[in-house]
Amino acid sequence: MQKYVVGVDLGGTKISTALSDLNGEVISQTTVPTKANEGEIPVLNRIIESVEKVIKDGSATYDEVKAIGIGSPGPLDAEKGVIIHTPNLPFNNFNLVEPLNKKFGVPVYLDNDANVAAIGEYMFGAGRGTKHVVFFTVSTGVGGGAVLDGKIYRGHTSNALEIGHMTVAPDGPRCNCGNIGCVEATSSGTAIAKRGQEAIASKVETSLRKYEKVTSYEVFTEAAAGDPVCKDIIDNALNYLGIAIANAVSIFDPEVIIIGGGVSKAGEIVFDTVRKVVDKRCFKSMAESVKIVPAGLGTDAGVIGAVALAILESQDK
Amino acid sequence: MQKYVVGVDLGGTKISTALSDLNGEVISQTTVPTKANEGEIPVLNRIIESVEKVIKDGSATYDEVKAIGIGSPGPLDAEKGVIIHTPNLPFNNFNLVEPLNKKFGVPVYLDNDANVAAIGEYMFGAGRGTKHVVFFTVSTGVGGGAVLDGKIYRGHTSNALEIGHMTVAPDGPRCNCGNIGCVEATSSGTAIAKRGQEAIASKVETSLRKYEKVTSYEVFTEAAAGDPVCKDIIDNALNYLGIAIANAVSIFDPEVIIIGGGVSKAGEIVFDTVRKVVDKRCFKSMAESVKIVPAGLGTDAGVIGAVALAILESQDK
Repeated sequence: MQKYVVGVDLGGTKISTALSDLNGEVISQTTVPTKANEGEIPVLNRIIESVEKVIKDGSATYDEVKAIGIGSPGPLDAEKGVIIHTPNLPFNNFNLVEPLNKKFGVPVYLDNDANVAAIGEYMFGAGRGTKHVVFFTVSTGVGGGAVLDGKIYRGHTSNALEIGHMTVAPDGPRCNCGNIGCVEATSSGTAIAKRGQEAIASKVETSLRKYEKVTSYEVFTEAAAGDPVCKDIIDNALNYLGIAIANAVSIFDPEVIIIGGGVSKAGEIVFDTVRKVVDKRCFKSMAESVKIVPAGLGTDAGVIGAVALAILESQDK
Repeated sequence: MQKYVVGVDLGGTKISTALSDLNGEVISQTTVPTKANEGEIPVLNRIIESVEKVIKDGSATYDEVKAIGIGSPGPLDAEKGVIIHTPNLPFNNFNLVEPLNKKFGVPVYLDNDANVAAIGEYMFGAGRGTKHVVFFTVSTGVGGGAVLDGKIYRGHTSNALEIGHMTVAPDGPRCNCGNIGCVEATSSGTAIAKRGQEAIASKVETSLRKYEKVTSYEVFTEAAAGDPVCKDIIDNALNYLGIAIANAVSIFDPEVIIIGGGVSKAGEIVFDTVRKVVDKRCFKSMAESVKIVPAGLGTDAGVIGAVALAILESQDK
C-alpha cells in the first residue's frame, strides 16, 4: 500500500528531506549541507541519498512511497521538472525529476519555493480546511502563490503570482526588476532596511544612528520605541503592502490571505495595518469574509510544503 | 440527443435569447423589451416565453436542450441561482434558476455579465483555443472576469475579479466605491469624461469647449486632433489602465488579456499604451508571452456569452 510520500526542500545551503504519511505526519527526516559549489551531480546524489535515508529510517519500502515532492528556488519549469537557473544552486536547465523518477519508480513533482509554501499552508498550515488561499511571503523580496479551488495556480508560463512585482506606487522607488513602485521595492525587508539607511545618510534626527548595521529589524524596533522617522518608514511600507493585499482580495476574493516571511514576524503592527487598508480599499462583503493571518508552519515549512506538494499532485492518481 | 443549449442575456432594457448548437452556432434568436417596471413575475414570464420561442423557432424539442445559461447584472449568487439585487431589474433575492429548471427540466446556470462575457470570449471570441483568459471591460465602469485552466474563477464569495477596484493611484481620484485611486476612478469612460468636464470648468485652454456635452468620446476625438489637454487626460487614464493590466499579468500570467467595452473602441491608442506599460512593468518572459487584444464578439456578446456559459458549465455532465 502506498501510504507515504517524500518531501525535499532544496536550498542553497541545505537539503531537508522527510518521509511523511498522507496526513503530513513526519515519520523520519534528514538534513544535509547542499555543498552547491561541488556541482550538479554531487548535489543530485545527495538528494537521492537523502530520499533513500528517510525511507530506510522510516522502515518503509520504495513500494510504499506514492510520490516525491521537491521545492526549489526558481525560475524553474514545473511541468517539465527542469530547474532553469538559480543563483545559489549548481543546476542549469537541469531535469531534476527524471533521475529521481528513474531511481525510485514513483511520480516526482518539482515546484518553486513560493508555490510549495502556499501548498503547505493550504494543506497543513493556516489555510487548512479552506478552498482559496493566497500566500504572501515578505522577507528579502516579496513573493507568493495561490491555491484556487484546491489547486495550485501556475499560469501560462509557470510564473503566476509574481505578486512582489505588482505596481502599488507608480511614482515610488525603483525595484531591482527595473520597474518603478513594485511592492517589493516599497515593503520588503530589504526596502525597509534601505529606507532606514537612507535616513541615517540624511540629516534627519533618528535613533537608528546608534546601530552599526541597520536591517528591517532595527527599523521595526525603533518604530516600536517611538522614533518618528522609523514610524514613518514602517507606516509607509505596510501601507503599500496593504494596497497589494487589498488588490489581491479584490482580484481573488479568497477565503484567506496568509502572510509569511521575516517581515510578518513583526506581528501585530503588520496585520493591523494591512487589515485597515483592506477594510478601507475593498468591497465590504469581501473585506469582511477574508481572513488575514500569519503563516501557520514554522521552520519546517519548506519540507512540509514539499510533502504537501507530493500529496496534492498525486491525489486521484 | 442533447445537441442544443439556450442562452439568455437579461438586461435592464431588453432580453435577448438564442438557441445554439454546442459549437455556438445560433439556430434561432429573439429579443424582447424587459419592461422591468412590470415586476418580477412578468419579467420571468417573458424569459420563459423567449426560451419557448427560440426552441420552437429552431424546430427543436425540450429533450434536445442540454442546458440554459443566463447572464444578468449583479450582484448575484451564481451557486444558488439567485439575483440578489440590481438597479435596473425588478428581482430582489429572486431565484431565477428554479422556475426555469422546473419548466424545462434541464440544468440552468446563472452568472454575472462580466463572467459571462469572459466565458464567451474564451469559448467563441478572442480567447478561443487558449487556457487562461483575463477579460477587462472598460466602459462606464471597469469590470472583468477570468477563465483559469478552462474554468471560470469565482472566488469565495462569488465576487472575484473586481478588477475595476484595484488601487493603481494611491493618491489619485476618489472612486464611487469610496476608495481612492481605483482604476475605475482613473480610467473608465466616466472618469475620462469627468476629467474633460473638469478641464472645461477650469481656466485651461482646450478645444473641448466647443461641445455642448463632453463624454469620453469627445476627449478621445480631441486628443487625436492634437489638443494637449485631452492628450494628457487620455495618456494619464490609459497609463493607469496599463498598470492595472500589468498587475493582472504579473498575478495571473495569462495567455491572453482581452479588453472590451466602450473605451476599448478607441482602438490603437488604447492597445499601444497598455502594451507599452506592460512591457515596462512586467517580467520580460510574461510580457512577451501574453497577447493583449480587443474583444472578439460584437453586439451579440451577451447572448453568445450566455450560450457559452450553458455549454461550459454542462460539460462532462
